[in-house]
Amino acid sequence: MKKKKISITDLAKELNVTPSTVSRALNGLGSISTKRKEQIVNLAQKYGYRPNHIAKSMVSNKTFNIGLILPEFTHNYFNKILAGIESITYQKGYQLLICTSDALKEKEEKSCLTLLDARVDGILAAAGNSSDNLDHFSKIIDYGTPLVLLDRICEDLNTSYVITDDFDGAFEAVQYLIDSGCRNIVHIKGPDYISTSFNRFLGYQEALRKNGLTYREELVIAGDSESFVDDVNNTLNTFPIDAFFAFSDYNAFDIVKVLKQRHCKIPEEISVIGYADEPLAQYISPQLSTVKQPAYEIGKRAAEILLKIIEENIELPMTEQLKTSLVHRETTKNSH
Amino acid sequence: MKKKKISITDLAKELNVTPSTVSRALNGLGSISTKRKEQIVNLAQKYGYRPNHIAKSMVSNKTFNIGLILPEFTHNYFNKILAGIESITYQKGYQLLICTSDALKEKEEKSCLTLLDARVDGILAAAGNSSDNLDHFSKIIDYGTPLVLLDRICEDLNTSYVITDDFDGAFEAVQYLIDSGCRNIVHIKGPDYISTSFNRFLGYQEALRKNGLTYREELVIAGDSESFVDDVNNTLNTFPIDAFFAFSDYNAFDIVKVLKQRHCKIPEEISVIGYADEPLAQYISPQLSTVKQPAYEIGKRAAEILLKIIEENIELPMTEQLKTSLVHRETTKNSH
Repeated sequence: MKKKKISITDLAKELNVTPSTVSRALNGLGSISTKRKEQIVNLAQKYGYRPNHIAKSMVSNKTFNIGLILPEFTHNYFNKILAGIESITYQKGYQLLICTSDALKEKEEKSCLTLLDARVDGILAAAGNSSDNLDHFSKIIDYGTPLVLLDRICEDLNTSYVITDDFDGAFEAVQYLIDSGCRNIVHIKGPDYISTSFNRFLGYQEALRKNGLTYREELVIAGDSESFVDDVNNTLNTFPIDAFFAFSDYNAFDIVKVLKQRHCKIPEEISVIGYADEPLAQYISPQLSTVKQPAYEIGKRAAEILLKIIEENIELPMTEQLKTSLVHRETTKNSH
Repeated sequence: MKKKKISITDLAKELNVTPSTVSRALNGLGSISTKRKEQIVNLAQKYGYRPNHIAKSMVSNKTFNIGLILPEFTHNYFNKILAGIESITYQKGYQLLICTSDALKEKEEKSCLTLLDARVDGILAAAGNSSDNLDHFSKIIDYGTPLVLLDRICEDLNTSYVITDDFDGAFEAVQYLIDSGCRNIVHIKGPDYISTSFNRFLGYQEALRKNGLTYREELVIAGDSESFVDDVNNTLNTFPIDAFFAFSDYNAFDIVKVLKQRHCKIPEEISVIGYADEPLAQYISPQLSTVKQPAYEIGKRAAEILLKIIEENIELPMTEQLKTSLVHRETTKNSH
């Protein structure tokens, strides 16, 4: 049987008092006779009335809820971030309220509003690839709710960030390919409007430059293009490619598939390096070499910073940059 | 700068009116002069006051938020359930608020309370393996909030369920093994206290019985035991095993690993069938045969049922049972 939710107004009506009297009785605030208070508390218990968290949080001004906005959970990367966040929030007695955005701006916006409505004490968010601006996060800042963004920097947003050193991660990967003898290295680039794509692309270019190799625009392929597989095949047909450095492991998985179809020897003829270190990387054959992002650590640090802001009322936005590491598996040759 | 959150009381003080007048003005309810209303609305805008969703929901008595409690997202199974749920909630304009429980009873309890506090219109929950009772969900029912449970039945809880036919799924898998010539079939059993373990175990027993094979307790191994790998090896050393039917794909992955270490030929000497159809099943070598659960469909149906209860105020608990399908890959022989 679906019961009607009992409100303060219902309780007030039945006892012929004002809703504000009921509220004061249940929250132990203001002046009210003991007898009246008992009446109200007993009736509330009888009807199973649950004072809402806003009433409760008026006292502590805290809900002990933290909002989290992530694109999705099919990438293990976000699962590890979640685990890192929970390692801190759970221990400190905060409950996570999670919204998924599917990397859509519209859903991110709605998630921000829902979490503000739920009066969370702070918000952690990894902005999705397909939102080309992060203005909607400024609502959170305007509202005075602490915000820590993961992964992506948005220069217009004066808030705290936990990011990885994408330039360095990419540089190290391409340097490794060059050290192992590769000279014609394709870069699979991420979506144009996000900082991680740009920084990995810069790291690729800088590694070429430092090693006296010419940067060639024709060797850069958009990873999110619908014609991605065709573009890879065309590039392989046109140039003497000996390596791929991909923005993501998923692009790299596709490349390995294409190379196997073409009966290319991996890594003897062509090397492949991905980015992220998804668990699948160890299960495909050959096992994928990749740039490992410290996802768990990113989540952990972001939660630590957010709780520092919430609990110690620190006002300065902080940016923390974590290091990546190159994992050499079976799609790369040994370096010289 | 962290701003103080502006409350109705703050606005009331500044304008020297009662909080209830402010509330009526902002919600457009009750009698109030146009001039007074304008004053209040202007001040609220000036301070960036956001009426909370409870104030708003007092009008519609709905928040358009749905709570979701899932153990975690590292298993693709739960990701697909989430995608199925979202396919319905998004289309119907509901926002999901997700809590993860890590399959811990304590976290499940806290999640229930947090979601009730957030006044969600209904709750979808997949109870975790390690909670041996589901009493904490009865709070949701007592509170009158619609609840649909996924996956596991708890006979004491009079609510709606969406489950898969685990008995049938297991029966079909073991029948297939028998049809392909296997006679000494080990069952890797799930945790004792959950209905899915029990039903898959029953399906295994029934398939043996129907085919005139004797059920032997020694051929049942606990999948969550710490000595799991040793138990598998001991069983292989003691009996002429020709097949494994596992409660989960992850148990099956471990068995494939053990068999490869022992240089057993899969499936010629020993067949393996898992349960769930995790994406990894297609990436390991040999590719895992498994019982595919309709995870997306489970999520979709659960959301449909919940919204039916919420929107049409239907009072009868519904239970819906969905069919599994056997996916024959490389760890099973062809059946005769």
